[in-house]
Amino acid sequence: MHGTETRKPLPGFVGGTLDRVDPIRSNARLLAQTFADPAARLLAMDGLEPVEADGHLVLEPLAADARVEDHVLLGIDPARRPIFARLIADLGPNMVPTPRSRAIAGLVPAEEVALYGTARSLVHWHGRHRFCSVCGAGTQPVKAGWSRKCDMCGSEHFPRTDPVVIMLAEHAGRVLVGRQHGWPQRRYSALAGFVEPGETIEEAVARELYEEAGVRVRDVRYVMSQPWPFPSSLMIACVAQTDDDALTLDQTEIEHAVWCDADGVRAAMAEEVDAPFLAPPPMAVAWHLLDHWLADVAGPNASA
Amino acid sequence: MHGTETRKPLPGFVGGTLDRVDPIRSNARLLAQTFADPAARLLAMDGLEPVEADGHLVLEPLAADARVEDHVLLGIDPARRPIFARLIADLGPNMVPTPRSRAIAGLVPAEEVALYGTARSLVHWHGRHRFCSVCGAGTQPVKAGWSRKCDMCGSEHFPRTDPVVIMLAEHAGRVLVGRQHGWPQRRYSALAGFVEPGETIEEAVARELYEEAGVRVRDVRYVMSQPWPFPSSLMIACVAQTDDDALTLDQTEIEHAVWCDADGVRAAMAEEVDAPFLAPPPMAVAWHLLDHWLADVAGPNASA
Ligand SMILES: [Zn+2]
Ligand SMILES: [Zn+2]
Repeated sequence: MHGTETRKPLPGFVGGTLDRVDPIRSNARLLAQTFADPAARLLAMDGLEPVEADGHLVLEPLAADARVEDHVLLGIDPARRPIFARLIADLGPNMVPTPRSRAIAGLVPAEEVALYGTARSLVHWHGRHRFCSVCGAGTQPVKAGWSRKCDMCGSEHFPRTDPVVIMLAEHAGRVLVGRQHGWPQRRYSALAGFVEPGETIEEAVARELYEEAGVRVRDVRYVMSQPWPFPSSLMIACVAQTDDDALTLDQTEIEHAVWCDADGVRAAMAEEVDAPFLAPPPMAVAWHLLDHWLADVAGPNASA
Repeated sequence: MHGTETRKPLPGFVGGTLDRVDPIRSNARLLAQTFADPAARLLAMDGLEPVEADGHLVLEPLAADARVEDHVLLGIDPARRPIFARLIADLGPNMVPTPRSRAIAGLVPAEEVALYGTARSLVHWHGRHRFCSVCGAGTQPVKAGWSRKCDMCGSEHFPRTDPVVIMLAEHAGRVLVGRQHGWPQRRYSALAGFVEPGETIEEAVARELYEEAGVRVRDVRYVMSQPWPFPSSLMIACVAQTDDDALTLDQTEIEHAVWCDADGVRAAMAEEVDAPFLAPPPMAVAWHLLDHWLADVAGPNASA
């Protein structure tokens, strides 16, 4: 490559650089001081959507009449600016990623994508937790927007983060990729599903692969993780081994799934026109999981 | 050991053997049939506490007047018995593990501990989600107890599982162990904290170690995971490296923390009287994390 460095993109929403300043959250005096800091900035959002200009997220001074209790303190950035997001009451139907919120990963630096992801998850969580699940009364944000307190029964409620396993089953040099109903034509990716109460990560991987594809796996190996703010998942990417490649697809969950060898995966990742499928975009952890598997198959001594 | 096999205990709540039968949950006809199955059993619970007799959890026939909508279908056991738990309205103050619910890990086989953990998390979640967090109206269990639906706004709510990182920082052959306020005397364990929205597992490990102990880490490595049903955590155990062993403790979070070498950890795990600290019990994933680290330090060729 004659000296030019080809750096791999990070998965979207990974690589935040804010100091989350936990001690400020619970200290009203420090929080008020942080909110009054002339360097403090509001992360502009259009509902839950990102606002971008000139390749960066838009950060604005806080309005003169802004109240700290309507905001979440996301943290303090490397330029020592406290960054806030404004809580909104009406979310609209925003459970799934919109084209605009997905596209942000290609428009601004990784640490800003991570900042947006954090803000989106938190603003969404507040909008859907204005009432107490224990008693039905109203709740109010406390701790700089990092929890909500019930006016009536005193319960404290914390933002949720839902662990999701996303995984490749491997058999004889091939991996299993599948597609959900409604995905773009020819798009295949790793299978995925929520971790349930009472399961390990490894047990969830085995259950999901069996439920969705009828594949029994062993030797589940963790690869990497990614926050996915639609609305608040923690993607946990794994590879698992199977001794039997027979498939029994649950077609309520997935439309189709196939075993694909390294040449096919490589062609898909290189976006070749005759590739066997369309790979997920690099913002998705599935892209990195496929990339990791290719590097693993090629082995440490293979030339790129 | 002359032929006797010393098998390591599983961490508590790991190793469930129930088929979670996802397709039955959303199919009212199949669910009614499963509930009416003469082989169906109710997992006896005293509030959120386990009920044990003769080294096993107590399973009872379903009462003649029992209604399926008051139950969660935990799954079907290897003896083909559908296993249900009964939902309760009044939980009492049950957020923390009681001595009785902790002790169950030593009284019944691992797969029954896992069954209890799943039941406890789900029954607890239902008890704390009788109202809709979006609109404040009442909610009803649906999908065999695997979600709740709002009567008013139609929102569907799913059981929560909170990812928690639990980790050892490593420096020059020593690991960092700490103790929280109120723990048993001399008890030290791995540091831990909730994964927040917008973070990877690795980022959460780095943030928590810095917040609690002032330690900056790199090279976070995943080791294993464990469901922890007090009330609904997913423990994610990791080891990370640091280049600087200076400590700055956050004493609102932890009472004390120290670096400990392999001999000290080994003595603690062996429960020696002059060990530098009291290790966590084998039901805790921290015990397994320390055990993993010792094996790692000893290296693959070391004799036990
Ligand atoms: Zn309440
Ligand atoms: Zn509602």
